[in-house]
Amino acid sequence: MPIYNAPLADMKFILNDVFNAEQFWQSNENLAHLDAATAEAILEEMAKFAQNVTLPLNRTGDEEGATYNNGTVTTPAGFKEAFKQYAQGGWIGLGAEEEWGGQGMPKMLTVLSDEMLFATNPSFMLYPLLSVGAGMALNSYASQEQKETYLPKIYSGEWSGTMCLTEPHSGTDLGIIKTKAERNEDGTYNITGTKIFITGGDHDLAENIIHLVLAKTPDAPAGSRGISLFIVPKFMVNEDGSVGERNAAGPGSIEHKMGIKASATCVMNFDGAKGYLVGKENEGLAAMFVMMNYERLSMGIQGLGASEFAYQNAAQYATDRLQGRSASGVKSPNKPADSILVHGDVRRMLLNVRANNEASRAFAVYVGQQLDITKFSTDAAAVKKANDRVALLTPIAKAYLTDTAFQATLDAQMCFGGHGYIREWGMEQCVRDLRIAQIYEGTNGVQSQDLIGRKTIKCNGAYIAEYIEEIRDFANSLDADLNFIKDATLDAATEIADLTQFVLAQAAESVEFPNAAAVDYLHAVGLLSFAYMFARIANAAKDKDGEFFQNKLALAQYFAQRILPELDMRIAKVKAGSDLIMNFSENYFTSQA
Amino acid sequence: MPIYNAPLADMKFILNDVFNAEQFWQSNENLAHLDAATAEAILEEMAKFAQNVTLPLNRTGDEEGATYNNGTVTTPAGFKEAFKQYAQGGWIGLGAEEEWGGQGMPKMLTVLSDEMLFATNPSFMLYPLLSVGAGMALNSYASQEQKETYLPKIYSGEWSGTMCLTEPHSGTDLGIIKTKAERNEDGTYNITGTKIFITGGDHDLAENIIHLVLAKTPDAPAGSRGISLFIVPKFMVNEDGSVGERNAAGPGSIEHKMGIKASATCVMNFDGAKGYLVGKENEGLAAMFVMMNYERLSMGIQGLGASEFAYQNAAQYATDRLQGRSASGVKSPNKPADSILVHGDVRRMLLNVRANNEASRAFAVYVGQQLDITKFSTDAAAVKKANDRVALLTPIAKAYLTDTAFQATLDAQMCFGGHGYIREWGMEQCVRDLRIAQIYEGTNGVQSQDLIGRKTIKCNGAYIAEYIEEIRDFANSLDADLNFIKDATLDAATEIADLTQFVLAQAAESVEFPNAAAVDYLHAVGLLSFAYMFARIANAAKDKDGEFFQNKLALAQYFAQRILPELDMRIAKVKAGSDLIMNFSENYFTSQA
Repeated sequence: MPIYNAPLADMKFILNDVFNAEQFWQSNENLAHLDAATAEAILEEMAKFAQNVTLPLNRTGDEEGATYNNGTVTTPAGFKEAFKQYAQGGWIGLGAEEEWGGQGMPKMLTVLSDEMLFATNPSFMLYPLLSVGAGMALNSYASQEQKETYLPKIYSGEWSGTMCLTEPHSGTDLGIIKTKAERNEDGTYNITGTKIFITGGDHDLAENIIHLVLAKTPDAPAGSRGISLFIVPKFMVNEDGSVGERNAAGPGSIEHKMGIKASATCVMNFDGAKGYLVGKENEGLAAMFVMMNYERLSMGIQGLGASEFAYQNAAQYATDRLQGRSASGVKSPNKPADSILVHGDVRRMLLNVRANNEASRAFAVYVGQQLDITKFSTDAAAVKKANDRVALLTPIAKAYLTDTAFQATLDAQMCFGGHGYIREWGMEQCVRDLRIAQIYEGTNGVQSQDLIGRKTIKCNGAYIAEYIEEIRDFANSLDADLNFIKDATLDAATEIADLTQFVLAQAAESVEFPNAAAVDYLHAVGLLSFAYMFARIANAAKDKDGEFFQNKLALAQYFAQRILPELDMRIAKVKAGSDLIMNFSENYFTSQA
Repeated sequence: MPIYNAPLADMKFILNDVFNAEQFWQSNENLAHLDAATAEAILEEMAKFAQNVTLPLNRTGDEEGATYNNGTVTTPAGFKEAFKQYAQGGWIGLGAEEEWGGQGMPKMLTVLSDEMLFATNPSFMLYPLLSVGAGMALNSYASQEQKETYLPKIYSGEWSGTMCLTEPHSGTDLGIIKTKAERNEDGTYNITGTKIFITGGDHDLAENIIHLVLAKTPDAPAGSRGISLFIVPKFMVNEDGSVGERNAAGPGSIEHKMGIKASATCVMNFDGAKGYLVGKENEGLAAMFVMMNYERLSMGIQGLGASEFAYQNAAQYATDRLQGRSASGVKSPNKPADSILVHGDVRRMLLNVRANNEASRAFAVYVGQQLDITKFSTDAAAVKKANDRVALLTPIAKAYLTDTAFQATLDAQMCFGGHGYIREWGMEQCVRDLRIAQIYEGTNGVQSQDLIGRKTIKCNGAYIAEYIEEIRDFANSLDADLNFIKDATLDAATEIADLTQFVLAQAAESVEFPNAAAVDYLHAVGLLSFAYMFARIANAAKDKDGEFFQNKLALAQYFAQRILPELDMRIAKVKAGSDLIMNFSENYFTSQA
């Protein structure tokens, strides 16, 4: 049975010591209701829920899976009760507006509570996650009446939400969706079309499901400028807010997948279903992107959660497994062999995972803080700056945190040897479940295009220049006893600044260059971001006594010397340009000749 | 339905143009029965078998899986007939001695036929693979009578073979196995113990199963010097060679795994089963290593096969999938979108996979040729040199070819977007099935220890020095128009020579260093090996007309500029030493504090 102990010590260290969260909250009138003790109490409560409720349902959920039968989806045993308990604990609305029944907690905090749920049961977590994303989109773009109708029910968990974008022929390229929305005289619409890959498209956890559906009106402009967003409830909502008759929207089947098997991934059929426009016609993508950006950071948290889960189990296994002897002499003479922790290669894998976890967690809180500034700050200049930062870092949070986490789960699985391949140990499930995080909500390739294109080239490198300036200012403020990470961070900042200039110059010359360079550029910026996080971690730890803080410094050193060398490789790949890639004929790829 | 077209054009190019196989065969009296036309005919036959017989059973085999019921294992529908057809085609003994019913084909050829089977159905391939491995161990160490009894039946497919090493508490560390072998007065032994992870430990494909079992006699020395090897047949063999009564050896259960689900991975119980000593007491490990080394190269071929399968399907999907438009202008104006092959990032992934395939294939043939020299050459000096080379390259063939192939299957899966995560497309199965190749037959971490320890430090770098000398001689012979790969290869050779000196010096100072540096050192040597292969490929292609050959040069260039930059990262990690890793307390790993 896999273990999980919520990493509360590191969470508290990051909130309190690295980011001085309480001071940040108290200095903002919209967050002044929150202090460190309350935040810690919330994390401790979530830790109990994750350890006691969702963890035990993770393996069984994978074995049983969500099932489809006669037009309805059933979740695995225990999910319904767990969802009810989660909803009743107020967790769905933890970060939502108090006006609609939420608890108004900042993102800095909710990224950490989300991490615990993703760590212990990613399939389960996806159900409330989609509800929260739908809630955010409605809160930003829906009418007052729509908000009143849907938001309290969504945050209470009575109802849930989905996002219906993808169609069989249209995923990344939403401009070519075919789902139609025909206007009725009463201002409603009839929605007709098929959507695929709809997470939580149907289930038995809530009494109603509120689908947010992208569709095109008959006279809409072609492409992505002609997409509208509609609310399509599974059951119609009566005047008094109660659930009425069934709408013509439902699942046609569910997908059989590599992982997250307890999460129902539905093919959704809309057969002239009644829909309600959200915002204005043809402006649906903007509303959907509120939801998407939220989900994208969440996918990074999914990575972090899986990587933490993988770490804890691998570290425990490595401690317990006796095999071979230490190169420096027998360590456990009374046992038939030493623990495999005596082997440098096993430690190397574990340290890779742990470094990933601590940097990812700090980075998630950092991005959460930027989101909180955009939402809660009253300082317009600060909001503008934070908006730019969020725009820059969202694709990194999604893609870099899931790419590194996936490698981390592989390293952790490898610590188990053959047992890592066996289902009962839970490690192979962790790998399978996480793999989707690199793919969905825009593949990591698409995230990289977003970073290099919209977020870098389009603003002529302004966003990244601001980010680098902040990093340099911070690194330059560090004492000389932190030179090991100070210098590494400053060097990385200079390399990224130079690389960005190279990217801008190349992009001006070759339209093909950005796409080909994107993934390596994203990883390069991700490495700089982790260096920055370890600089902040090291600075927070350096003057404090105790092994806990010394180990933070040692792990930062490990990162600088054993992980950061990847940066030069990424730079070399970006600099190799795109000609080598684009010069092959299209025919080459499917031809042996 | 996934596709597969055997890559015969590249196979022929590698055999004929890169390695001048016919000339090599004809110059060796033991191989002079083979010419290029015959070799090609064999490959074409195997291609038909792979495409028509094993490919269609791959998805169904995964869905159905091997099943265990009441002490017997049943393989998925169609496996029995396919195995019979495979056996009747003479494929099991393709590389085995003609004396025992084999066809005496060289390894240079069988690596290519094996690749096709691994590509189309790795679970199926494992059944005959274990038979061949068992056959090789018996051929090297068994008595004449034992060979006569077992080998013809194994190569005909009437019987199959297994290797029974691992026990619940003992995997990498075979010195602590507990299975007992008690001598009987008639010279047989009673074998008692439990083995786990036994591939093909039971099944319904053959009428008998010959288990090769490691066990300890009561008075055996402690550790790995006290291990003996036994033949333990599932059914006793009568005087006339027919199958007699059941032996006390059978499966207790099968494992539920991440992948290769159609391959039965058994827990085997030996309850005083009758066993026959192979060779001498306490010399069992040497015999088992004959088998293990064969299997280890085969795992590399498993990687290559999966990577080729993944490539073909991803390239086809990318060609068919219309999404977005080319940055350089619409390419398919009559279609709703362009093929995703217009995007540099998609091409980058495909080219990574294809470069991996072509270099891996050349490397497999190269190692195969070295094995053929050890087996067939009559020149003692050449045999000695080839033995050293095989010793050096076996861990690289196993670990590097599976590590790079696994990444390749991930890249290919990513080309599918969300569809890559759905079972029916077959890509997620490819990833799951291949993952085990990095783990079994000695994890890739253990392979790396073998390379840096026994194969490098122990001989003071002699093996790698000889290898580097060969590479330099070859690269120096290249014309100036191949400078792009000539210089890259010579630079890599120098870097590896320097790195090896660093490793030897560090190893003399720190007993902990080699283990911590091993994986990065192996990858560094792997990269040099691929550079060498591309140098040979480029040289074979350069004076020939046609797109096929030009593309070989372009892919070599892609490798040099977009893959080889990883070398410096690996070197930096090796040079970071082991102190950063070993200084953490053992307690740190499971502690949050």
